[in-house]
Amino acid sequence: MNKKYVIIGGDAAGMSAASKIRRMQPESELVVFEKGPHISFAACGMPYWISGVIDDGSKLQVLTPEIARDKRNIDVRIRHEVTKINPSMNSIVVQDLNTGNEFVETYDALLLATGARAIVPPIPGITSPSVFTLRSLADGHLIKNFISEQEIKHVTIIGGGHIGLEMAEACRHLDIDVSMVVRGDQIAPSMDKDLLEKVTENVIEHGVDLQFETTVKSLEKSDRGLQVQTTAGQFQTDMVIVSTGVMPNAELATEAGIKVGKSGAILIDDHMQTNVENIFAAGDCAEHNHLVLDESMWIPMAPSANKGGRAAGENMAGGSVRFPGILGTAVAKVFDYTIAQTGLTEKQARKIENLGEFETTTITGGSRAHYYPGSTPMSIKLIVEKGTGRVLGAQMVGQEGVAKRLDVLATAITAKMTTEDIGMLDLTYAPPFAPVYDPIHVAANVANK
Amino acid sequence: MNKKYVIIGGDAAGMSAASKIRRMQPESELVVFEKGPHISFAACGMPYWISGVIDDGSKLQVLTPEIARDKRNIDVRIRHEVTKINPSMNSIVVQDLNTGNEFVETYDALLLATGARAIVPPIPGITSPSVFTLRSLADGHLIKNFISEQEIKHVTIIGGGHIGLEMAEACRHLDIDVSMVVRGDQIAPSMDKDLLEKVTENVIEHGVDLQFETTVKSLEKSDRGLQVQTTAGQFQTDMVIVSTGVMPNAELATEAGIKVGKSGAILIDDHMQTNVENIFAAGDCAEHNHLVLDESMWIPMAPSANKGGRAAGENMAGGSVRFPGILGTAVAKVFDYTIAQTGLTEKQARKIENLGEFETTTITGGSRAHYYPGSTPMSIKLIVEKGTGRVLGAQMVGQEGVAKRLDVLATAITAKMTTEDIGMLDLTYAPPFAPVYDPIHVAANVANK
Repeated sequence: MNKKYVIIGGDAAGMSAASKIRRMQPESELVVFEKGPHISFAACGMPYWISGVIDDGSKLQVLTPEIARDKRNIDVRIRHEVTKINPSMNSIVVQDLNTGNEFVETYDALLLATGARAIVPPIPGITSPSVFTLRSLADGHLIKNFISEQEIKHVTIIGGGHIGLEMAEACRHLDIDVSMVVRGDQIAPSMDKDLLEKVTENVIEHGVDLQFETTVKSLEKSDRGLQVQTTAGQFQTDMVIVSTGVMPNAELATEAGIKVGKSGAILIDDHMQTNVENIFAAGDCAEHNHLVLDESMWIPMAPSANKGGRAAGENMAGGSVRFPGILGTAVAKVFDYTIAQTGLTEKQARKIENLGEFETTTITGGSRAHYYPGSTPMSIKLIVEKGTGRVLGAQMVGQEGVAKRLDVLATAITAKMTTEDIGMLDLTYAPPFAPVYDPIHVAANVANK
Repeated sequence: MNKKYVIIGGDAAGMSAASKIRRMQPESELVVFEKGPHISFAACGMPYWISGVIDDGSKLQVLTPEIARDKRNIDVRIRHEVTKINPSMNSIVVQDLNTGNEFVETYDALLLATGARAIVPPIPGITSPSVFTLRSLADGHLIKNFISEQEIKHVTIIGGGHIGLEMAEACRHLDIDVSMVVRGDQIAPSMDKDLLEKVTENVIEHGVDLQFETTVKSLEKSDRGLQVQTTAGQFQTDMVIVSTGVMPNAELATEAGIKVGKSGAILIDDHMQTNVENIFAAGDCAEHNHLVLDESMWIPMAPSANKGGRAAGENMAGGSVRFPGILGTAVAKVFDYTIAQTGLTEKQARKIENLGEFETTTITGGSRAHYYPGSTPMSIKLIVEKGTGRVLGAQMVGQEGVAKRLDVLATAITAKMTTEDIGMLDLTYAPPFAPVYDPIHVAANVANK
């Protein structure tokens, strides 16, 4: 008899799993319940669509429910919220948000792909209609419409992380003034501050009013729009974008007795299975094995949602594929710079007990041969285990050639390479693309001393 | 007592070794004999200097004999040719090419860094003053001067390899007409032809008269300059650049009883030592261990000359560093395209007995997210061992993001990763830099099926 597969959540992880199950089990029953109005969209593209760099918003829609149904034979039900899981009954309770009707659905295998949601700090006035978060495609539509309809001249971004920075760039691209209010003393808090000096300068040069060590105390309606009261003073703004991080949507899981980790996200094994039989999890609602620490960690990212979702689907459909884990590899374009990281930062490493001793090395090298026009400096910082020379983490900042160069180090870290190994890697060399000693070699050789 | 170190050849390998020895043994005697007038120059930059892309030729001079002497305390003797090695006496015979005087020099450790030289095919007329090779910095000067002084309008390039292609681009940049005469049926013969279709079209679109399966039969002086007689016909040209490959300068070594490999280049162990005590070799005159085949191979390249030279220097000076080997990683800019390779090509693999079965996979992916402006297609071809899934080689062709993306695969091949491992690598993703499944993932996943 054909099995019945149920997936909760229709974004990257859920639809990756569904597509994989459908390819492996063409005759099976397969239902995806998605709370929102959209499935499978390119969230990371939204800042570029809001800015107008991407002209056609429909390109961000990877799949529609109609195409999923018609072309892939996946029964996608949008605006359907799963409100309860009964593992002992192999069933869930679903509410149709269109009608309010509730019904019970059974499963042979269930995938939790419920994602994460934006954290909204409890600031007085935060519920104002001029305050937005950017997480769903619907959020993106709201922001884009609000900017054009209200002729926005000034945006306040709360938070200095990757999304906040991308939104700052998007607003500046639209010639909108930007104030960025950051609680800590640096942008891109997932990275080490010492590498970000030039990027921070660049953000300011591009006209962003960057306010460090400042928090918003209240948002009050004013003639212009909102009056922002911070710990440092006050100013007028037309619109606020809250970009202070996300939290996992794991309440449904915990209520059903599914174990979660320290982060609150769902714990899974390397086959994407939770502690409860026939229940899998993937994407931003789940922790993943960190390849450097060999410990479960929560670093929600699109690539692991896609790969993990696919792996979950394969395993649900009777396959056996191992998802080895993540390095927290991340990259962002920040005005004229690219910032990228993989594995541990120094900041992270310092907080980890039992890590053992490590050293850091930071170098600057050229993106091309020094004599070739257009070569720009890039900085690389390595976190290296003392004694063994094993590289535990890498960060890179520069104006070109950063993203995929960082991937060389992500690959080396995955292979548990030492600085000696990396110094000897046979990497491409030609004047338009790299110096004869690539900055990667230079970093490894300096660290190796 | 301080040791005496002698190095034959003052280019990348020789000067890398000398610099390392000097840092480790500040008081030692250290002499470098260089036959030509220059040391340590960036050969790979010459096409860009000839084209004018690099404005200042002096930037290609990494070190001068004066700076080597004054700043690094290395006794460099240019225009000194070593004519004999007497291993039993730990001595060499040197001729001062300025005076013709010969003298004997002893050593405690000797490095052969004699490089390679251009192959000049025995074509009637090949010794004409309008015919050039591009190997030394002096060659570069001759070509650049000839082009400007003779007001060259048409150049014939014999050979379609990387240097030939770079020179074709350089000439077109100078608005000089180019005929490229290629014996085989493809450009870039170190790569597989099937990946090069669009690059070949691009070369033709940029105005290069590309003649495949054609050889030059004779070069005769004519009114305009030279009359080129080929197997396909004849045409007039102002100048010929011969770019038909190189051969190792290993005669000095073989005469002294130093073993060479099948290629004729010097055999070394993983500490850069030859079979003769106290004699090391590095750079283009030596074979290196191929990391996929675990066999000695001759693939002369600047990066291995630099790294191998440095390793040789360290070992000569009493250290112990292992040079693990090479993958033949190479990249070239060819007009609007970048072509890159690492490890085995299909063509190579087919020729290797005892290699075992392998499969090839070619995919096309985007350099950025498909919805992000400027994304261009890139092709990746993988050579994969059957059964194990281990990747043996990779080639990549595209318009951006190729060189360092190929390095991810060079690193993965070094780590003996399988397509399954590579498909799960946690690589950078953001719309301006890559799709959520990088073309590398796509290639690995398709190969993995």
